[in-house]
Amino acid sequence: MANGERHPRQATEPSTFKISLSKGNGRPLFVQLHEQIIDRISAGELTAGARLPPVRRLAEQLGINHMTVAKAYKDLAKAGFVESRAGGGTHVRAPYGTKRARGAEPAVAGPLLSERLYELAHAPGVIAFVTNYPEPDSECMKEFENCLQSVIADGLSPYFIYDSSNGRISLRRAIVEYLAQRGLATTAEDVIVTSGAQQAIELVIRLLVSPGSPVIVERPTYYGVVNALRSAGARVLEVPLDSDGMDIGTLEAHLSRHRPRLIYTNPTFQNPTGVTTSIEKRRTILALARKHGVPILEDDHNSELRFAGSPIASIRALSEPSDDVFFVRGFGKVFLPGTRLGYVVAPARARQALLALKAQSDMHTNGIMQEAMARFLARKNYPKILERMKRIYAGKQRKLIASLSAGMPPGTLIAKPEGGLSLWVTLPEGTEVSELYYRAVRRGIAFVAGEGFYASNVNPRTLRVSFGFVRDDVLEEGVARLCSVAKDLMPPRSAPSPIFT
Amino acid sequence: MANGERHPRQATEPSTFKISLSKGNGRPLFVQLHEQIIDRISAGELTAGARLPPVRRLAEQLGINHMTVAKAYKDLAKAGFVESRAGGGTHVRAPYGTKRARGAEPAVAGPLLSERLYELAHAPGVIAFVTNYPEPDSECMKEFENCLQSVIADGLSPYFIYDSSNGRISLRRAIVEYLAQRGLATTAEDVIVTSGAQQAIELVIRLLVSPGSPVIVERPTYYGVVNALRSAGARVLEVPLDSDGMDIGTLEAHLSRHRPRLIYTNPTFQNPTGVTTSIEKRRTILALARKHGVPILEDDHNSELRFAGSPIASIRALSEPSDDVFFVRGFGKVFLPGTRLGYVVAPARARQALLALKAQSDMHTNGIMQEAMARFLARKNYPKILERMKRIYAGKQRKLIASLSAGMPPGTLIAKPEGGLSLWVTLPEGTEVSELYYRAVRRGIAFVAGEGFYASNVNPRTLRVSFGFVRDDVLEEGVARLCSVAKDLMPPRSAPSPIFT
Repeated sequence: MANGERHPRQATEPSTFKISLSKGNGRPLFVQLHEQIIDRISAGELTAGARLPPVRRLAEQLGINHMTVAKAYKDLAKAGFVESRAGGGTHVRAPYGTKRARGAEPAVAGPLLSERLYELAHAPGVIAFVTNYPEPDSECMKEFENCLQSVIADGLSPYFIYDSSNGRISLRRAIVEYLAQRGLATTAEDVIVTSGAQQAIELVIRLLVSPGSPVIVERPTYYGVVNALRSAGARVLEVPLDSDGMDIGTLEAHLSRHRPRLIYTNPTFQNPTGVTTSIEKRRTILALARKHGVPILEDDHNSELRFAGSPIASIRALSEPSDDVFFVRGFGKVFLPGTRLGYVVAPARARQALLALKAQSDMHTNGIMQEAMARFLARKNYPKILERMKRIYAGKQRKLIASLSAGMPPGTLIAKPEGGLSLWVTLPEGTEVSELYYRAVRRGIAFVAGEGFYASNVNPRTLRVSFGFVRDDVLEEGVARLCSVAKDLMPPRSAPSPIFT
Repeated sequence: MANGERHPRQATEPSTFKISLSKGNGRPLFVQLHEQIIDRISAGELTAGARLPPVRRLAEQLGINHMTVAKAYKDLAKAGFVESRAGGGTHVRAPYGTKRARGAEPAVAGPLLSERLYELAHAPGVIAFVTNYPEPDSECMKEFENCLQSVIADGLSPYFIYDSSNGRISLRRAIVEYLAQRGLATTAEDVIVTSGAQQAIELVIRLLVSPGSPVIVERPTYYGVVNALRSAGARVLEVPLDSDGMDIGTLEAHLSRHRPRLIYTNPTFQNPTGVTTSIEKRRTILALARKHGVPILEDDHNSELRFAGSPIASIRALSEPSDDVFFVRGFGKVFLPGTRLGYVVAPARARQALLALKAQSDMHTNGIMQEAMARFLARKNYPKILERMKRIYAGKQRKLIASLSAGMPPGTLIAKPEGGLSLWVTLPEGTEVSELYYRAVRRGIAFVAGEGFYASNVNPRTLRVSFGFVRDDVLEEGVARLCSVAKDLMPPRSAPSPIFT
């Protein structure tokens, strides 16, 4: 760090300035430099006011022409990431998104996990165990296409006008009927259609959570919820998961001590762990929530995809309508990903405020898609589609569990859920999944590092292995690569010696 | 108010309890009672802890059977709006949505204005001057339908997978080309596709505004922004509008005194006033924003719909890319309402955080609709559609201004904008638009009361008359009804006496 700066408190140079340029990869050096500096600003390593190394010094350090560095700095300034100061030097400007509510967890790289998963799912040559939703069945897609065609044939003009923020009545009625078949009694008035389950979750969180509000979640939990809670400034209280759901002792302690504003739970084939909360624990959680007057946000993402055991009633179904259970679902996790259609079944006294938030967020969800989905449900061809999907994914899960059990290093824990499209894997002591991420992708294999699923105290040995989009013909090869990468991870001292095994 | 209550601080009965039941309207009395009590809770007239009148007393007051009141109370309790207390009586529970960030304006009935407008636009027999977007041209709809058909014909499977939160590259490129034709140079990287302009606006506000943050808006301004700012807890600083845009003196004063986080402006055919900010003022606003380091959110909702005068460059076009101008548009306000497609052109250093917020809000916008819109733009048939729409709406505007000028009470001010689909009307002193609302609807005429467009100090004499969906054959009749209702509003003392006019 330089002394005698004109801005001594702000103009701190990072003590290390790691940049790694590659001359052979076809990308101009100034672009690589530009991108890496942005990455470091975005990651929070270069903070507002930090001074970049002088052009000539950095050029010398990297062994490149100083014009290259100057060009990168100029482009960074043009894009607003850095600025030249009268006092000399190039300084980092505060990036957006650094404002933080009091009591909030610091924002980490988590928010863009979804984008990373998207990139991985599309990366050529990569077998990506990243997708927690099914590849749509071809009959299912055809059925939706037919429904869309019928909507078009009936004339699109009703959809070129702003629609109710509630959602189309045809879809809300179809949802009510669908839920009734699954043991959940509700009415069209209770249902608000959303742009996917993610929006439903976020609206409920925005409704209930103020900066500093304590919120109970399972540990680990869905990264989209971790992000939404961070963004809302929540104080996240984690409850460890046993094999049958939340640890009730911890739940009770949090409820008694912190007066939380919300309990978020994903009780069936939990994302990421696959844990299913037993009927007894669902009743206990509901009773405790009632006792403490805390609303529950129940995320029922893919309970249809059950391969073993019997269906368990949702917490919403167990509760009286007067209880404050928000029941959230999307259509993407079971039938048709990408349509961005979901819904929340909300308590009556929350409806108006929730609707106002929905209107404020995006007015309403696309009507053509809503109507096509309403017809898809009304045709009731999905039961046989669902049966086929369950057979297919049960087979994939079996194969995956068998080959992972055989090939992963000793000491690896693999949870075996009764359904869903993910396995939660914990590597042996002494390993770190996060270091492996890019190395694995270069070996043509991807998984989801567990870190995004923790609100705090990440367990660095965890990963989610999702098989929603993995074709049968590459599954074995994918597992082989995953096991090989995992073995590479093992520290030498813990590598099992053939002599002793 | 009863004395000697067990909960003396909470259990306050409202001093007046106005319920008005109608026996002839076909709705059971207990339903009417139930709904009216919910309305009063939602409106904040019955607050948490308030005690409802005892069943028999209310039955007597209303002249109905006490079982009817008991049934309504029971249903309200079941739905969670009220609760019976051990100490006796039925008490209002705190409704959701009452949490309020520090420094925030109190939430008013505003948030559901969009829902009210939706209902009015669909009310049978009502000529609704409420719609600030065009009725889609039939060729325009046909064109979109063809594009949608071509997307389906090419196979829907690419859309049944989660998509990038950025938006589809085909649509982002089409947007870049569209904007280039209108004098705004940008790149696909700068564009984030959103679920309508409303989402784009809300994401930018959520990015920049923390509870208590000062934000500058025009006075009056778009109600969706008023609501989003309230929800974010902003301290709203209003700048009065002159006929050529914001009052620069007030703008400068706010900038100097309050260190605002954002300037929101809708510079062309402003919603609701129709005011267009002159090129000189756009330059001044940009220069002042630069000087004070304040980002601008430019909402360019329908600048294509210009009937007179010459197009004016957007503030984003006037600025360098390194300036912090967020440029927001939707497709609904000009071409195809209801598709819920919009976008934001964002400064580079805001992109990652904005993208994270987009992912957190709804992952991504429906891909099928994005692709259909990309093809709609790429076919480039819209210029002739646009020309036709401009002719049609210019004609409607002319007719509306002429007949309103002739028929409204003396002292009425009618702004005459150079484009757009709304007129801003200020009634003479001594009138109150808000009282008129339901009376007008019963007379078969609707407009938008001005109150929703003010963040504070509502001008109660203002209304927005929008002609987006008013057919030519009912326009004259609609104006006649509106003028008649407006004349009824005039206080007797100010009614012009025929003798003196």
